[in-house]
Amino acid sequence: MTLKDQLIACGAVKFGDFTLASGAKSNYYVDIKKASTNPVILKAIGEAIAPHAKGYDHIAGMELGAVPIAVTASLASGIPYLIVRKESKKYGTGKRIEGDFQPGARVLVVEDVTTTGGSSLQAIEVLREAGLKVDRCITVVDRQQGATGHMADAHVHLSGLVTAKELLEGRV
Amino acid sequence: MTLKDQLIACGAVKFGDFTLASGAKSNYYVDIKKASTNPVILKAIGEAIAPHAKGYDHIAGMELGAVPIAVTASLASGIPYLIVRKESKKYGTGKRIEGDFQPGARVLVVEDVTTTGGSSLQAIEVLREAGLKVDRCITVVDRQQGATGHMADAHVHLSGLVTAKELLEGRV
Repeated sequence: MTLKDQLIACGAVKFGDFTLASGAKSNYYVDIKKASTNPVILKAIGEAIAPHAKGYDHIAGMELGAVPIAVTASLASGIPYLIVRKESKKYGTGKRIEGDFQPGARVLVVEDVTTTGGSSLQAIEVLREAGLKVDRCITVVDRQQGATGHMADAHVHLSGLVTAKELLEGRV
Repeated sequence: MTLKDQLIACGAVKFGDFTLASGAKSNYYVDIKKASTNPVILKAIGEAIAPHAKGYDHIAGMELGAVPIAVTASLASGIPYLIVRKESKKYGTGKRIEGDFQPGARVLVVEDVTTTGGSSLQAIEVLREAGLKVDRCITVVDRQQGATGHMADAHVHLSGLVTAKELLEGRV
């Protein structure tokens, strides 16, 4: 089964009339947690990302949604992962990035769902401020609502394992 | 290499004189992120937890530290995982537990480091309020500062893959 079919079969993608959190209307809805909490699909996601991670020093994901994606891609590729926190921890070291790294290291950013790409762009900014190099982002589902362009503006190439176009293919 | 030796080799456990976040003194320090962001060790952790997960319907971990532990244990065992959020999402469904479940399902709680067990007990309370059954918690490192007793009070059996006693064995 393709990843697209797996996403539909597990209920992570539903078709119909939906109003998104932003207020916008959509003819499909993505509940990626249904896929990312399913170990069979999560493993397939990791294995799909692993070949793209070749040559990178780290895989990084933004808290919280991208963490399981970063973990499965790390386990599938053997490349260590970093977690970008939404905000610094109040106590302790106060750092925004969890995991060890050297400035100048190359990082592949991963995301669960991309709409405009805002969350990933925030992660990329934090990673770059820490001296890390980011030129690529892989998202499980790209809703294709501007993320590719916004990422390109930041010199990052975005690829979706599954895109909105693919999901809606053959539907009226 | 045993998990204890892996934790020491990767720098996740250090010996010396430390002052913890709580202000208490300690002769060792655990930086579990050094272990949990290392895919080799994280995989070993998942494989060590998997046999204990047999018979459970879900593995659950508290945001954020326990998420990679829940993910690796889920991938190693094939049992789906749940994430317990620190607080409800402000937008969307507002639920405290990410992932699908049926009330009455049996859940194995996992944790990265346990001191008094407070974080895991909070997760257990949320899971039980949602109708889930919890009788067991596995932690990667049990600092043995009261967690076993506090969990027993809540009718939960705690096991540490590595305990403070084991870490300090043979040290003056």
